[in-house]
Amino acid sequence: MVQKGLLIVLSGPSGAGKGTVSKALMPVLPTLWFSVSCTTRPPRPGEVEGVNYYFKTKEQFLDMIENNELLEWAEVYTNYYGTPRKPIEERLAKGQNVLLEIDIQGAKQVKRQFPDGVFIFLIPPSLEELKKRILGRGTETEESFSLRFGAAADEMKHISEYDYVVVNDKVEYAVDRIRSIIQAELCSVARNREYYDQIIKEGT
Amino acid sequence: MVQKGLLIVLSGPSGAGKGTVSKALMPVLPTLWFSVSCTTRPPRPGEVEGVNYYFKTKEQFLDMIENNELLEWAEVYTNYYGTPRKPIEERLAKGQNVLLEIDIQGAKQVKRQFPDGVFIFLIPPSLEELKKRILGRGTETEESFSLRFGAAADEMKHISEYDYVVVNDKVEYAVDRIRSIIQAELCSVARNREYYDQIIKEGT
Repeated sequence: MVQKGLLIVLSGPSGAGKGTVSKALMPVLPTLWFSVSCTTRPPRPGEVEGVNYYFKTKEQFLDMIENNELLEWAEVYTNYYGTPRKPIEERLAKGQNVLLEIDIQGAKQVKRQFPDGVFIFLIPPSLEELKKRILGRGTETEESFSLRFGAAADEMKHISEYDYVVVNDKVEYAVDRIRSIIQAELCSVARNREYYDQIIKEGT
Repeated sequence: MVQKGLLIVLSGPSGAGKGTVSKALMPVLPTLWFSVSCTTRPPRPGEVEGVNYYFKTKEQFLDMIENNELLEWAEVYTNYYGTPRKPIEERLAKGQNVLLEIDIQGAKQVKRQFPDGVFIFLIPPSLEELKKRILGRGTETEESFSLRFGAAADEMKHISEYDYVVVNDKVEYAVDRIRSIIQAELCSVARNREYYDQIIKEGT
C-alpha cells in the first residue's frame, strides 16, 4: 500500500511573499513537487514554459476549463490563470507531496476538492510591513495602492479557513516553519492510521 | 494578553528511547521547560535533586497525592513516581512551552486534565528493533524480557490516543521531528484564533 502524498496549499494575502518563500522552499525540500500553473498571459522575458508557467492560448485555456482539467482557475485583469489537475493527482497517488502556491480564491476552490490538504496562510509580520512591501514594488499609483492594501487587509479574514498561519518575518524562518508543518503532518496519527493499524496487527 | 504555552507530552512504549530523545531535545529547544518528576526511589550515583528527580519520602509523596499536587502518578515496583502540577501550570500560564516525558498510563492521566496538550507517541522503527533494544540493556532474564516485550507490543495499541507518532529510527531525526511538531503547533490556526482575531480587527 502506497501512502498518499500530502497536498500542501500555500496561500495568503497579496504582498505576503508567497512567491519568494515558495522559491526558497525548493532546495530545502527537494522531494516536494511544485505545481506549475497555466496562464494565458504572454511569457515575460526569461520565463520558461513548464517552469514558470504553462503558456496557453485563451482557446486552449477555455477547453481545459470545459474538460474539468483545472483544479481551480481565475480571470485576473483579462488573463486566465489555473492549476492543472492531472499532474497533481498523479503525484499524490504515487505518494509524493505536492506544493501549490495560489491566491486565496484559488485555495478556496482547492479546499472544496481536497478537504484533507494542508492549508497554510502566509502573512506579513504586520499590516505596516504589508504596506511597505506593496509600496516597495514601486509600481503602484496611490489609487491602486489603496485598492491592493484594502484587499490584502480584507483577505486576512480568511485565516480561519486555514490549518496554519506562517508569519513571513524573514524568508528563512518562514521556510523553516513550512518545512516543520509538513514534517509534523507526516507524523500525524490521523494521517497514518492505516499504517499503524498494520504494525499493531503484526505485533500481536 | 499572554499566549498560553504548549504542554507537550512525550510518551511511548518502554524501549522506544524517550529518555535519550528527550535529553537530546534540550540543546535544540533551549526555551522549552522540561518537567522534573518526583520519586520515592533512592537516588542513583550521580543523580541530582531537581535535575533527574525530586527525591521524596513515601510520606511526602502520599501527602502530595492527597493534596492534589500531582498531575499524574504511579506505583512502579514498590516505588512511586509522579509529576508535580504547580510548576507546569505556572510555566504554561506565563507562555512557556513545557515538555513532559512520561509513560503511557501517565500520559492518559494528563490527557484528561489537558486535552489540548500535544501528545506525541515515540516508537522504535520496528518491533524487531524494540526487541534488540530491550535485550541490549543486558539486564533482562528471558522471563522479564517476554514480559517487557509483550507489554511494549501491547502498548503500541495506544497510538490512536495521540496526536503524533514519531519513529525513533535515529535520535537526531526523532529530535528534528519533535521540534517540527512543536513549531507546527505554534503556527496552528486553532491555537492562535484570539491573536489573529485581534490583527484582523486592527486592519479593518
